[in-house]
Amino acid sequence: MSTISDSANRAREASQVLASIESETKDAVLRTLARLIRAQSALILGANTGDMDAARESGLDAPKLARLELTEAGLEQMCRGLEQIAAMEDPVGMVTTERVVESGLKVQKVRSPLGVIAMIYEARPGVTIDAFALCFKAGNACLLKGGREAAHSNAALAELAKRALGENGAPESAIELVTTSDREEIKEMLGLTGVIDLVIPRGGARLIEFVHEHARVPTIQHFHGVCHAFVHASADLEKALAICTTGTTSAPATCNSLECVLVDAAIADEFLPRLGAACGRDGIELRGDSRTVQLAPGAVAAAEDDWGTEFLDKIIACRVIDGLDGAIEHIQQFGSDHTETIVAQDEEVCERFARRVTSSCVLTNASTRFNDGFQLGLGAEIGISTSRIHAYGPMGLAELTIERYIVRGDGQVR
Amino acid sequence: MSTISDSANRAREASQVLASIESETKDAVLRTLARLIRAQSALILGANTGDMDAARESGLDAPKLARLELTEAGLEQMCRGLEQIAAMEDPVGMVTTERVVESGLKVQKVRSPLGVIAMIYEARPGVTIDAFALCFKAGNACLLKGGREAAHSNAALAELAKRALGENGAPESAIELVTTSDREEIKEMLGLTGVIDLVIPRGGARLIEFVHEHARVPTIQHFHGVCHAFVHASADLEKALAICTTGTTSAPATCNSLECVLVDAAIADEFLPRLGAACGRDGIELRGDSRTVQLAPGAVAAAEDDWGTEFLDKIIACRVIDGLDGAIEHIQQFGSDHTETIVAQDEEVCERFARRVTSSCVLTNASTRFNDGFQLGLGAEIGISTSRIHAYGPMGLAELTIERYIVRGDGQVR
Repeated sequence: MSTISDSANRAREASQVLASIESETKDAVLRTLARLIRAQSALILGANTGDMDAARESGLDAPKLARLELTEAGLEQMCRGLEQIAAMEDPVGMVTTERVVESGLKVQKVRSPLGVIAMIYEARPGVTIDAFALCFKAGNACLLKGGREAAHSNAALAELAKRALGENGAPESAIELVTTSDREEIKEMLGLTGVIDLVIPRGGARLIEFVHEHARVPTIQHFHGVCHAFVHASADLEKALAICTTGTTSAPATCNSLECVLVDAAIADEFLPRLGAACGRDGIELRGDSRTVQLAPGAVAAAEDDWGTEFLDKIIACRVIDGLDGAIEHIQQFGSDHTETIVAQDEEVCERFARRVTSSCVLTNASTRFNDGFQLGLGAEIGISTSRIHAYGPMGLAELTIERYIVRGDGQVR
Repeated sequence: MSTISDSANRAREASQVLASIESETKDAVLRTLARLIRAQSALILGANTGDMDAARESGLDAPKLARLELTEAGLEQMCRGLEQIAAMEDPVGMVTTERVVESGLKVQKVRSPLGVIAMIYEARPGVTIDAFALCFKAGNACLLKGGREAAHSNAALAELAKRALGENGAPESAIELVTTSDREEIKEMLGLTGVIDLVIPRGGARLIEFVHEHARVPTIQHFHGVCHAFVHASADLEKALAICTTGTTSAPATCNSLECVLVDAAIADEFLPRLGAACGRDGIELRGDSRTVQLAPGAVAAAEDDWGTEFLDKIIACRVIDGLDGAIEHIQQFGSDHTETIVAQDEEVCERFARRVTSSCVLTNASTRFNDGFQLGLGAEIGISTSRIHAYGPMGLAELTIERYIVRGDGQVR
């Protein structure tokens, strides 16, 4: 038996214990882990420095380096996240609906753990802790396959998680790190039906496609976000400018950052000169269609494949389109079902946009950067699903469970 | 382009229209279809007679013949089902949660159609109408691949559905029948990512395994039910007898019928003679372990593979086990995550059973036959999911949608 199937089987066994573990034990594990991370921050940052040095040497690009880096402040945020998750209500056992039916049966839908969740992700080591904490709080064991670049950081973090589990009498295999990057072994993992209940890939197109091709266990994709802002003729242009510029500058390397601005032809003359100036001021590269290049100072000509590209950098593609239908057509062709926003004072147009654009999160008069579990009030998120199955949009604790039926009777037959 | 991919693409186009179709139009289509089925019942029953004759000739077994057969009463039930679904609330656009978050954003989760749903099923022609009606009401187009045995029945029913769609100005490709049984073409269908959003296979092990092996689009399995009743030492034996016998006699060929009775050793002497007599009276074949054969008149020795087998006939396997732990161990080894029930007057034992057995539906003191969308108050069901993803247990209208986020702001940025 391979290492990966050993790990998966250990996680499976742990999941059977976790299914009926007390909430108090789970929360104690999360709080212990926060304490251990704070106490051992030098060790973790040392491991991360090793990863960063190797990554720089191998020529990793700037956005990826940014995602790989851990800082003292980042660790503190991680610990607060753990404490927040510990303080949240346990989703397991939660009754979501309850009714008494004609036969007198009392029918409940109750949240239960999924079982074993495998995550495959890339550079961010913080995901290791976030994913473990959310999976564990929802009663699941997790099998974590992070990026090779983050190997030392992930190992240091997982080691502390196991220690926190052990100190509280919980099964240490509630977290299992997959250290191989061998494609054949990963394929094997993706085929472990009955051992793994769900695979969540988070990352670039190649990773997602690999998982899509080889997974036999259910998957929920956390794909990239090619996010659009449509500036309608009725837009408040000040708001539009703020939504467009901060949408990329506040965190260019995140999936909810803005990639593309669609400008209603009716206001192109007025809006584009201001957008060009604002981008110049904020250090954003503006890649436009011919109309944009004409009207926006500093804009360069967009290449055909700039539409539908996730830049992960301070770059915005910009195109002039004809009204709502033009915007929707562009989004249907180039969007990624992730996040789109409309800037418009005309509420009816906003509602039509929200109804017809069926991305996982559609906003009106707000930045795409709000498509995030914390910002939307979920308390935490394991990622943002772009699969229209099980969960679509930010996945929090509830989305890591499944509802099953518990039905109480008094001898009813049919 | 193959026929199957043509059909799928037509369904995809229809789904784009259905996403924003009015509730009134959907309901009118369903009511028109009921009217057409009543008016054309002779034609449908004639087509079904053709299927039945051919099936008998080819030696189809009794349970399958029973599932293939349509009757006047069955058609009337189908029509009432359509009218019930028409009368149900439209799930699309339903707001499931709503909150205002710190930033002032108004966050809604709203139900949206999945898109295109492909169903692969076996003999029952009634599924053609049920599946269409539920998918359509939830705003989805459907691609239906029924059993070859039911080809004429399905063609007659789908023809009427298309007519009902056309009469109400809805796209006729909201229902597309897949008439090929060529494995290569079905494989192609299972790979149509981006065209088909969900595949629901309903049927035997070979069908499920085929879909599991070849599907690249998400699937939710509607597998067989190997359903257990555990008769605890504290059971009311009258209730236990009724639950055990009617669990199979009331509809042996359904997935929620009872397969296996687990008898607590503490009451075996008292219960088994009565179970044997009741089975004899009701024409149920009782296949037991040695203790059962000893104590239950008429019981025959069970073979090893009777445990975990879905009989689809008036057969019950019976075993004497040691208390709750023994029952749970047996269910974990041989169960199918479908339906299990406990008969016990001790409420604490009932609760422990309900917590530790994680099948899609766990009942206490009620027949397994109640695991059914109608009986549990869903109004209707497309099947019973045994996949712990998206939906687990009976799937009704809500389970054929996905929730997405609509977020309304007033210029918020971060």
